[in-house]
Amino acid sequence: MKKIHIIGLGLLGGSFALGAKKKLADLHITGFDIDSQNQKDALTLGIVSEIKEQADVDTDLVILATPADTLGDLLISTLDQIGENTLVFDVGSTKSKLTTLVAGHPKRDQYLAAHPIAGTEYSGPKAALEDLLDRKVMIICELEKTNLHLKEKAYELFEALNLKLRFMDPEEHDRHLAFVSHLSHISSFMLGETVLQKMADEKNIFDMAGSGFASTVRLAKSSPAMWAPILTENKENILNALDGYIANLSSFREKIAQSDLEGLYNEMAEINKIRDILDLEK
Amino acid sequence: MKKIHIIGLGLLGGSFALGAKKKLADLHITGFDIDSQNQKDALTLGIVSEIKEQADVDTDLVILATPADTLGDLLISTLDQIGENTLVFDVGSTKSKLTTLVAGHPKRDQYLAAHPIAGTEYSGPKAALEDLLDRKVMIICELEKTNLHLKEKAYELFEALNLKLRFMDPEEHDRHLAFVSHLSHISSFMLGETVLQKMADEKNIFDMAGSGFASTVRLAKSSPAMWAPILTENKENILNALDGYIANLSSFREKIAQSDLEGLYNEMAEINKIRDILDLEK
Repeated sequence: MKKIHIIGLGLLGGSFALGAKKKLADLHITGFDIDSQNQKDALTLGIVSEIKEQADVDTDLVILATPADTLGDLLISTLDQIGENTLVFDVGSTKSKLTTLVAGHPKRDQYLAAHPIAGTEYSGPKAALEDLLDRKVMIICELEKTNLHLKEKAYELFEALNLKLRFMDPEEHDRHLAFVSHLSHISSFMLGETVLQKMADEKNIFDMAGSGFASTVRLAKSSPAMWAPILTENKENILNALDGYIANLSSFREKIAQSDLEGLYNEMAEINKIRDILDLEK
Repeated sequence: MKKIHIIGLGLLGGSFALGAKKKLADLHITGFDIDSQNQKDALTLGIVSEIKEQADVDTDLVILATPADTLGDLLISTLDQIGENTLVFDVGSTKSKLTTLVAGHPKRDQYLAAHPIAGTEYSGPKAALEDLLDRKVMIICELEKTNLHLKEKAYELFEALNLKLRFMDPEEHDRHLAFVSHLSHISSFMLGETVLQKMADEKNIFDMAGSGFASTVRLAKSSPAMWAPILTENKENILNALDGYIANLSSFREKIAQSDLEGLYNEMAEINKIRDILDLEK
């Protein structure tokens, strides 16, 4: 692999570039970002060696790492333009709309639908980290629709970055992500909002931030430019998750209102099972 | 200071003991826990050198570190029994009920209402850490009601542990904690519950736990024995916080349902202010 082109030089696009440069020799990485400051930063930080809008015709891999609601048009125009030995993959947080949109495209087999489960609450080229993707899960959808030969180019990169591949269909992906990732972000944003509304005196927030608040509200620092489109693109699944969450909160609220100590204890003890599941990670 | 007696030898009680032993020489620490396994663990781990139910009459400090709903009776019985040169303080997460209960007690001035903003999602003597309290905030309520001379015994310990003292009245404490700490725990527990309900296949939870889920759900590992009583003891404030939270979630849900990209963006951008406030901490 010699040439990678990355569109969207933020946290994820930048981290793919920095990780790839560290692990693969003689790599020429070009890219584009709609924001001119991001272009400058990407050059300064060595994320890309050249800014150009379109990938060269002999580019091995094009990575699309822009906000979720821009990926559809971008994917179509990229497929229309690339050479026959180029593979395109996106790293968007929703997969159903994109795979449906591209299903009938003549170059469908030059596309791989992917989603790395990696990120931080920061954004932009300066937030990119060369080891952000190291040993993270990479979800791949509809692998069978991608050209076998071209697929190897992506696999070479994924292996170099130590990504752990998981396979699921796009609907399953979007359903699961709504619960595990998107709902976490909403619960965190709303927690931040509720506390901000209540506390006129900022000093007291900072003083009492020790008790679990900081970690629970961390995701409320996330980029609205990234998250607003995810929420609307995966709307049906997110509304489903959110309705379940609100129903649980309301039922828990009733137990508190009734001072139902035993009910609260039992419910929380049941939820403690999340501990065993999360500990599998280690 | 020569003698400290600690009732409740769990995460907090144990951490006070380990921290005090590290910083203060020639300290004799005794204590009690209703759980016999905790008694054994506390002895093995060197948290206390002796298990006894009541403090010696020449004890300098008695620390009450049991669940929130047991502190009232325990505080009264402890005050009834201690010598005249002993100061009692509790470390409970709610303060209004306790200070009201003890307001007319003849030994009111031998009590200090305190709450260290420190903890982890683990519990019991084995979860105790000698540096858990280091540089944490310690909230003190109604300081003026505590004997000036006895107060110095607590201050000697707080200084040794590098605790940062903050003063507020009990109602303000309970109101703020409902938003900053108690609501965080509820939002986290309910997130864990919602995901557990949805995911029959545990493998997928663990695989996708990278994307902010682990930190947001961390508090759902917390001890129900500690938290159920906090939720009922601080019921009014918590219901207020929870109703605000549910209202924010419902209104945010409507923006998603209407695909109101701009509204979602603006709301999240506003909430991003939490970043500046949390960064003050550093």
